[in-house]
Amino acid sequence: MNLNSIFNPKSIAIIGASTQVGSVGNDVVKNLVGEGYQGKIYPVNPKATELYGLKCYADILKIKNKVDLAIIVVPAAVVMTVMDQVVQKKVPGVIVISAGFKEAGNVELENQLIKICKKHSIALIGPNCLGVINPIIKMNASFATTMPPSGGISFLSQSGALCTAVIDYAHKLDLGFSKFISVGNKAVVDEAALLEYLAADPHTKVVAMYVEQLRDAGKFIAAAKKIIRGENPKPVIVIKSGRTQAGASASASHTGALAGNDVSYQTLFKQAGAIRVQTSGEMFDHLRVFTHSNLPTGNRVAILTNAGGPGVLTTDEVIANCLTLAQLEPETRKKLDDILPTCANKHNPIDILGDAPAQRYQAAMQILAGDKNVDSLIIILTPQTSTQIKETAQAIIALKKQTKKPIVVSFMGGDLVIEAVRALRRAKIPALAFPEQAARSLAALTKFSLNRSKVSRYFSFADVDKKKVEKIFAAAHARGQTFFPEYEALEILSAYKFPLPKYYIATSAAEADKVAKKIGTHLAFKIISPDIVHKTDVGGVMLNVEPAQAGKKYNEMIKRIKKQVPTARLVGVLLMEMVKAPGGTEFILGINKDSNLGSLLMVGLGGTYVEVFKDVSFGFAPISEQYALKMLKRLKAYKILTGTRGRNPLAVNSLIECLGRLSQLATDFPEIKELDINPLLVSEKGAMALDGRVVIEL
Amino acid sequence: MNLNSIFNPKSIAIIGASTQVGSVGNDVVKNLVGEGYQGKIYPVNPKATELYGLKCYADILKIKNKVDLAIIVVPAAVVMTVMDQVVQKKVPGVIVISAGFKEAGNVELENQLIKICKKHSIALIGPNCLGVINPIIKMNASFATTMPPSGGISFLSQSGALCTAVIDYAHKLDLGFSKFISVGNKAVVDEAALLEYLAADPHTKVVAMYVEQLRDAGKFIAAAKKIIRGENPKPVIVIKSGRTQAGASASASHTGALAGNDVSYQTLFKQAGAIRVQTSGEMFDHLRVFTHSNLPTGNRVAILTNAGGPGVLTTDEVIANCLTLAQLEPETRKKLDDILPTCANKHNPIDILGDAPAQRYQAAMQILAGDKNVDSLIIILTPQTSTQIKETAQAIIALKKQTKKPIVVSFMGGDLVIEAVRALRRAKIPALAFPEQAARSLAALTKFSLNRSKVSRYFSFADVDKKKVEKIFAAAHARGQTFFPEYEALEILSAYKFPLPKYYIATSAAEADKVAKKIGTHLAFKIISPDIVHKTDVGGVMLNVEPAQAGKKYNEMIKRIKKQVPTARLVGVLLMEMVKAPGGTEFILGINKDSNLGSLLMVGLGGTYVEVFKDVSFGFAPISEQYALKMLKRLKAYKILTGTRGRNPLAVNSLIECLGRLSQLATDFPEIKELDINPLLVSEKGAMALDGRVVIEL
Repeated sequence: MNLNSIFNPKSIAIIGASTQVGSVGNDVVKNLVGEGYQGKIYPVNPKATELYGLKCYADILKIKNKVDLAIIVVPAAVVMTVMDQVVQKKVPGVIVISAGFKEAGNVELENQLIKICKKHSIALIGPNCLGVINPIIKMNASFATTMPPSGGISFLSQSGALCTAVIDYAHKLDLGFSKFISVGNKAVVDEAALLEYLAADPHTKVVAMYVEQLRDAGKFIAAAKKIIRGENPKPVIVIKSGRTQAGASASASHTGALAGNDVSYQTLFKQAGAIRVQTSGEMFDHLRVFTHSNLPTGNRVAILTNAGGPGVLTTDEVIANCLTLAQLEPETRKKLDDILPTCANKHNPIDILGDAPAQRYQAAMQILAGDKNVDSLIIILTPQTSTQIKETAQAIIALKKQTKKPIVVSFMGGDLVIEAVRALRRAKIPALAFPEQAARSLAALTKFSLNRSKVSRYFSFADVDKKKVEKIFAAAHARGQTFFPEYEALEILSAYKFPLPKYYIATSAAEADKVAKKIGTHLAFKIISPDIVHKTDVGGVMLNVEPAQAGKKYNEMIKRIKKQVPTARLVGVLLMEMVKAPGGTEFILGINKDSNLGSLLMVGLGGTYVEVFKDVSFGFAPISEQYALKMLKRLKAYKILTGTRGRNPLAVNSLIECLGRLSQLATDFPEIKELDINPLLVSEKGAMALDGRVVIEL
Repeated sequence: MNLNSIFNPKSIAIIGASTQVGSVGNDVVKNLVGEGYQGKIYPVNPKATELYGLKCYADILKIKNKVDLAIIVVPAAVVMTVMDQVVQKKVPGVIVISAGFKEAGNVELENQLIKICKKHSIALIGPNCLGVINPIIKMNASFATTMPPSGGISFLSQSGALCTAVIDYAHKLDLGFSKFISVGNKAVVDEAALLEYLAADPHTKVVAMYVEQLRDAGKFIAAAKKIIRGENPKPVIVIKSGRTQAGASASASHTGALAGNDVSYQTLFKQAGAIRVQTSGEMFDHLRVFTHSNLPTGNRVAILTNAGGPGVLTTDEVIANCLTLAQLEPETRKKLDDILPTCANKHNPIDILGDAPAQRYQAAMQILAGDKNVDSLIIILTPQTSTQIKETAQAIIALKKQTKKPIVVSFMGGDLVIEAVRALRRAKIPALAFPEQAARSLAALTKFSLNRSKVSRYFSFADVDKKKVEKIFAAAHARGQTFFPEYEALEILSAYKFPLPKYYIATSAAEADKVAKKIGTHLAFKIISPDIVHKTDVGGVMLNVEPAQAGKKYNEMIKRIKKQVPTARLVGVLLMEMVKAPGGTEFILGINKDSNLGSLLMVGLGGTYVEVFKDVSFGFAPISEQYALKMLKRLKAYKILTGTRGRNPLAVNSLIECLGRLSQLATDFPEIKELDINPLLVSEKGAMALDGRVVIEL
């Protein structure tokens, strides 16, 4: 796919160019001509001869020269006819603005579009979109009325209407854009493909995205990592709507129930290293700070203010967002002492008092910027009687030229400060309305700068028996079986070398006695029935059964359950070695397949409190060892793993290995829809899977 | 105290009025004269004869007429001299702007000020403050250069410098103020007193506060409840700095360790019914929505938009903040069908499409406002090609006059929308930059409207033996004892009729045998030593000891502990009846005294996970039964109390009663610094305190 033909075409044909003013087919031509695009423009309209001074063509084949990009605005019904000509003309890039495809129920039509693009390696944006804007080459290939200023931001949006508001904000906030992409239905070119392209685009410094849904977590994560962790790291800021939607489907598995819709996306963005914002206001704050700042080399902030209250409020936000207040060098304090009044606060946050003139601001900020313990600055101004607002802004603008450290500013107020704020914005200094916003966005920038971990390798175990699981699933497939209860799930886990206790299945009291003798230790009894999910609730679990009592207890259990759940089909009883694991804690592992995104792995605290505390964390398969550890660290129960008061640490490595085997199983078998290992007993010495269940998709 | 003399004085003397332009003593006179205050103004300055056209007086006693308010701007050292004259002149209200008191280490001087005010019932604001502004009567009794517009907000600030920024924002955002109070050191008049006054002030509709610290939680809560729950409920919006400060002191008690500094304030504001915001931006959003809206009668919101993306983002924020999307009446849908294009979304959020003219907005919003399932409206506009921005604003202004339902607006964009936004603001319609802000502030308004619970009575038990605890504490006082280990703590709990198991103290193996026989059931053994806090860690706890084994086990325990902690002083062993409570869960109760605020009660899940999950909640004593239940409902473990899968509900009422007894104990004995009841075993049948410790202040 040649995305460059879309974003940097030398020639553009508009198929469906219209002479009717106000129509989309007219707007697109007008925008291309009016904004000053320098390439060739070929309006295609069989009924017209001329449009905005350009010759019209009856169809695209009539154009003699090469066409890099075709913009299609004809009705959906004739798009495929037009596409045939596009193929004939060998046009590498296409934007389909026309609606009436999948979003309107016409899935088949969209599939045809996908097929023809794949066959001929055509890069296609849309259908059902606003178009594309590249302010760098003054190309407004959309029907948005205005073009944003040019600059370093590439914006991808799944909402066309939001684009127009963003463009208007951009002008107000002096934000410049490199690409403006309304992705539409994403039939061919999706976010992952765009991230790949933008990673290499020299004009793009920051990527912002408005997302309603994504597909294929793995692909997105890989593309995001490439752009975020490259030589020239480019942050990806995401706003995702639909975060409060209830989980798509009720699920019988713990993992399914705990992995709601937004949890998937939250995990996806974290794993990808993308910066997720909750509101559109926060997105703009971040954009202003990210586009106009170097990356800080540490998280130590100096706050400079002429008002105590806002200084403390900003300190709160700094610390709440995992930054720290810089401990100033002794020399810095001495220098501050020299220039500041006695009662000024020379400890960070530095309060240079309400009567501070611009000169005092200037001297103080210069000293702070020179302190090697200071990684970034937040400068706050409140308009008091003797405050020199404009002059202070000028001092900040001068400082910005001398230092590479990020400077974020908040001049608090309305009419008194507006002129100075405008000057700061023109000078590419992020000036936010309130200092807490400044702290929050600076924190995001710092986190991005410091947390770009290296790409690490995914788990891979050579000792797994993939063939065995393939056989089990093939057999299940043959008989239409999708659910694997414990005794069958254990076979799958055993093939992937999960640590398991000894176990056998007894179908009679006599057999129970025989098996018990063979195992030789105390036993756990668990009923086997396709109709019983929560075995404990119906008395289907007995622990610590003495081997000599096995037959007797077998009969007791069967009798009890037949009384409690008369309709349940009983296969037998699973007899399992009682595992002695003093100090052991029950964890839960799981897989939940998101049909859009992929296989989500889960780990968390199991046992009776699993549903009370929901202390679980997630990652899309495949994961690395490094990420597995991250998942554990997100748990409150991590304290239990590392040893709480009076308790020894548990075998974290065994738990990580289990997560790794789970990752490999999920990656090898994407047909696994749900999998729970519950409990996974983790003790000081190791982990052991005591129960499991698996559901596959046919 | 006569606060009215401060806020509505008929005559004001400025003691320390200065002829030096730019000085505080000059600014105050200039502000009073310049802003148009209509009462009498008496500058007091022995060296001047005239200031801004007013006659100067050598001292306040030279003024013949009555003086309602004295503003003092003389140096701290002479303030007390001036105060003597103020007393002689019988001035009921004083503002001390001068600094140099407690904040500068001059505690004694401030105490003198407090004493003289108390003695003569003088209402005093400050010292160390910016002054007071009452825009309603055009009184700028401060050295702030500008006065905010008049309106319904009363603003209390512990930061003078923040005031100037707030005034400037106020002009920009069309926010009007009724009182503007820089509280300074709060030597005499504090927030609680001001809330009492503002509750009765006819001009105050909303109170906003910037707080750095408070004292006496009980007094603040009582005053806040009065203003919030009165006939004309007035919301109190609070921004508190210092929320990320580490807890003031390391503490040996669980309750102390879990009740950090900000937890106290978080609890205080919740209990008071105040609305706490995290950032100054949020405060302004709330102020705009609260001052210009009626209270909604329900939480069902209709969202009207011309762009899908922002509609979904707003829906997210609506739901995340516990509002719901209104289910429109069938008739409403029919009416919308009549006026909207086919492909518009007539389900809430209602998307009337990008080409919506003002007329379509108007028709749709009128229909929505008329739906009885709609309690409030959020109207979103993005500036698209054919959007009629100003006309749509006019339509909203017209609607506002016809409906009592709150309308919150977001016109997204910059220059294109700014004029319309100004028109909306002038018409007192809250227009916020981003729709998520609109949703958040509307949610706060709705929560305030719906959650004003009735004042309920505090717990009071007639069966407690207060005298006995008085005696215990008096005896401890006499011998300088502050710490009460378990066996002494149990005496205190028993006096307040907490449910306790049978227990005795044995100091020898023989005695252990004797006591065990008396109790007759299995026993818990717990070592008694002033040097051992965590008994389990040193083997100082044995459970399920058979009565016949008592003497033997006694010796074993003593031997073990002497080996483990050779230096510990051993008093004996506490023998306690083993409580049989199947399905019982361990909770923890506690008291932690905050020296500023008062006695904080805590309840939470106990046992091994207490420090892992920190599942605890708080309330300042005294509490009501209603509030005790609220505290429980805030726990994740509330699910355990009400019964999780396969488990019966526990005795919630017994737990609530224990909380009540704890509240009474804390109220009766404010000298209790720390108290832990851990565990409090709660079963299906009741609660039982199994261990405790108490620390008092001498």
